Parts: sequence; C-alpha cells; structure tokens
Amino acid sequence: MDNRPIGVFDSGIGGLTVLQEIMEQLPGEDVVYFGDTARIPYGTRSRETVIKYSFQCIRFLLSKDIKAIVIACNTASAMALEEARKVFEVPILGVIDPGANAAVSSTKNNKVGVIGTTGTINSEAYQKKIRRAHPSSEVIGISCPLFVPIVEEGWEDTDVAFITAEKYLSGLKEHTVDTLVLGCTHYPILRYTVGKVMGDGVKLINPAYETAKCTKKLLKEEGLLSEKVDGAKYEFYVSDDPEKFRRIGGNILRKEIATIQKVNIEVL
Amino acid sequence: MDNRPIGVFDSGIGGLTVLQEIMEQLPGEDVVYFGDTARIPYGTRSRETVIKYSFQCIRFLLSKDIKAIVIACNTASAMALEEARKVFEVPILGVIDPGANAAVSSTKNNKVGVIGTTGTINSEAYQKKIRRAHPSSEVIGISCPLFVPIVEEGWEDTDVAFITAEKYLSGLKEHTVDTLVLGCTHYPILRYTVGKVMGDGVKLINPAYETAKCTKKLLKEEGLLSEKVDGAKYEFYVSDDPEKFRRIGGNILRKEIATIQKVNIEVL
Repeated sequence: MDNRPIGVFDSGIGGLTVLQEIMEQLPGEDVVYFGDTARIPYGTRSRETVIKYSFQCIRFLLSKDIKAIVIACNTASAMALEEARKVFEVPILGVIDPGANAAVSSTKNNKVGVIGTTGTINSEAYQKKIRRAHPSSEVIGISCPLFVPIVEEGWEDTDVAFITAEKYLSGLKEHTVDTLVLGCTHYPILRYTVGKVMGDGVKLINPAYETAKCTKKLLKEEGLLSEKVDGAKYEFYVSDDPEKFRRIGGNILRKEIATIQKVNIEVL
Repeated sequence: MDNRPIGVFDSGIGGLTVLQEIMEQLPGEDVVYFGDTARIPYGTRSRETVIKYSFQCIRFLLSKDIKAIVIACNTASAMALEEARKVFEVPILGVIDPGANAAVSSTKNNKVGVIGTTGTINSEAYQKKIRRAHPSSEVIGISCPLFVPIVEEGWEDTDVAFITAEKYLSGLKEHTVDTLVLGCTHYPILRYTVGKVMGDGVKLINPAYETAKCTKKLLKEEGLLSEKVDGAKYEFYVSDDPEKFRRIGGNILRKEIATIQKVNIEVL
C-alpha cells in the first residue's frame, strides 16, 4: 500500500476530465494536479519544447512526493512520454495508448474516427497507434477547433454545440465509422452532444475514462494503491492567473475548486 | 514622395484585415507584412513580453527599409505602441486609437459596445480610450472567444456564426448601444453576421478601415505617399510554418498568397 498522491499534469484545464475519472474510479487516491496555463497550448510547439515543458511539470510533481504520474495532455503524451520514462523512475502513463487500445478493441467494421485539436490530429498520434495495432483499419482524423472554446464557454449543451458537431462529424458519419475517439481532453464534456449527432451505433471512446482505468490497474499491479477507499484530497497548481482555471475548471469538475496555487514552473 | 513600402505586423493572420483596407484605400502603396505566427496569441502574454516581441517585429520590418509601421494587432497596439514610439524614429500607428476615435465620433446616445478577445476586453484598451474622450459614455465590453475560430474555419456566413453572434450580442442589444467596435482583427470578416444580429440602427466600427484611413492621412501629411497610384506589391513573412497562413490568409484577403517566407524572429 502507498498513501502518497498521484500526480496529474496538463497544459491547462482540459486534463481535469482525466482527474474527474480518477476521482470516480479511485475515490481513495489523493491527487496533485498541475495545469501549465502560462504556456498553453502545447500543440503548436516543437517536440523539443514539449519535452522540456513536460519534464518541468514532472519535476514539480515529484517535489510533491507523488507515487505515479498521469500525463493528461494529448500533445505531451505523444511527444514526451517515452523520453520521460527513460529519465524518471516513477511510473508514468499517458492518454494516447489507453484511448487507442480501447478503440482497437471496440471497432467491429475496422472504421475508426478520431477527433481532436488540429495539433493532435496532424500529429497522427492516435491514428498511427490504431493502425499499428490493426493494420487493416481505416482511421479518419478530423480536427474540431471550435470544440475547446465551446466547452470553455460552458456551451456544451447548446444549439451552437449541436450544429457545430453536425458540421464537423458529417464526414465521419458518411464513412460509417463504428468507433469514435474523443482525442482531446476537453471533448468528454461534449460526449452527449457528439453521441446525439453520431447516433447509437457509434461507440465513443473517452481516453480520460480509459486512462483512469489503466491507472487503477497499474497501481494495483505495483502494490501502490492507497489504504483509503474514499475521502481523497486534491491539490491544484497552475503556472498563470488561477481565475480562469477556477471558473472553467469548476464547470468541468462540477464542483468548486477552492484553493489554487500559482507555481513558477520556468525555474524547475 | 516616398516609394518605400509600409510595414504591417500582427501576431498572426488577423492583421490581414488591416492589410486589405490598406490595399483598397492606398492601392499604390507597397506593403511588407509580418505575422508572428510562432508566438501567437499575444493576448495571454505579459506587457514586458509583448513589448519585446513587438520590438523584434519592428526591427524585422525596418530591415526591409519601410517608411512607416502599422501595428495591426490589438494587444501590441495597447501595450507596445507608446514604448515603440519612444525608441524608433519611423512613424508608427496602432489600431486602438483609430477605432476608439471613430466610436466616439459615431455615438449619439453615448452607449458604445466593444467586442474582442478575452485579452483585449479585459485589458480595457478600447473602453478606457472611449471613456477618456467621452467621460459620460457607457462602454460595454463583451469577449467573444468563438469568433476567431469561426473565422479561421471560414464559417463566417453559417448558422453557427449567426446563433453564436446572437448569444454573445443579446446583452449589448438590451443595453441599446448605437455603436459597436469590432475590437479584434478577425472580426471584420464577421461584420455582415454581426450587423444582421445588431440591426440597422447600430453603427459598426471597423478599426481596420479606420486605421487604413489614418495611415493615408499620415502619409499625406508627412509627404510619404508613393508615386504609384496602383499596382502595389506585397511581401509576406511569418515566424512559423506558412501553410495555415496561406490557407486562412487567402480566405481573408480573398486572393491567393503566392509567396510566404519564414523568418527567425527570435534572434532579432
């Protein structure tokens, strides 16, 4: 047993959807969350820069005596996970592998859709993983740049969200995908709207949910589960003004985030 | 007379709306345009950083032997214009003053709306200028985070644009503003949609148009107009991958941007 917290980081608030799944699936695990809000978005930065930033996030979380790290950011998972595992001894998970593996297990007709930010879709991170596991599969990536601001406005259940989703997803429907990966940490908030547009025949893969499941499995296998079964504590840190994080993050978690501390991440 | 080009810079592609107005109002003036696409957005950065970046943009444009500079970026205009005028001898214009002055001249009921990015609205750059010129006026700022991605998707004439505009602008309509400043360089692309929502009684102020007008006046007063009356040449430079600039910029200018060169702006 190990009562130390799990460390979770993201380039901003999107990773709170991963935290929320950890809260639900592992209600006894304390978590330290770091959102690198001063340097968001990671998606437009070079591989070298994303690795540097991710290592700084990891070093910060290690200073909080965490027992495992979850990279709750698609770009950092794609670009920095392998490098980080070479350098740090702590167990580290990303969001890409759990999401891609779940898509491979789900599809029956070998037609998989992936939606995400332009950076994630252009990086082909999910598409490559799925094709590697399932070489005969057809994987179609669509970037949906309006989805993040829609979630950040709290508009996920509005007509704007619905008709935007219809515009983005019509091509995927024509391709008759039977599985759709929500390949951006913000998108699980839009899953009901996306589900309504895609219809019941399409299985939505939520990498946040899958990542929490993998985290639980890892902690169990490594004997790192907490003794507590509930009543976990959560600490929040950001690298920029906490106000936006508090407001939008509270919407995502559907509870108030009382204390958020600002960290000077550049010096780590 | 002075046949050297005008230099225009922005944090990205939005400033092309200013370039387009210069093309129309000053068809004989050559222009060198620089888009700092590697470091967009400026709106989330500190004043010190925005000044540093703006000075680098200005030094790049000066290396192209320009005769005047237009800062076609709201954040850089608000934060760096005054400092730049202290340091550089070349005439420099921003977009805030022309937009704010036009709003002050336009309003009859002293109720002015300003829409822009969250950064521009929170900075109160337009609001302060308008209140200073017109202390009794009521100025209401609304940030519209979905408008930039809507323009970048080329969705300005869709139902998504229209119902998004209705959601953002309903409060301004209730306040019966008679003048509305399009306080983000992307927004002139949405002017027909915004106009339809606000109705004929509301005058839309396009700072891009007003800035080009001020540029013409300045060149005339300083004896810097070109001898040509049309057939101007345009050069485009960016600090990151030119592909997105070519695609979205072409939509904004409604003509193909043939040659775009990449510049290492960090070293200037």
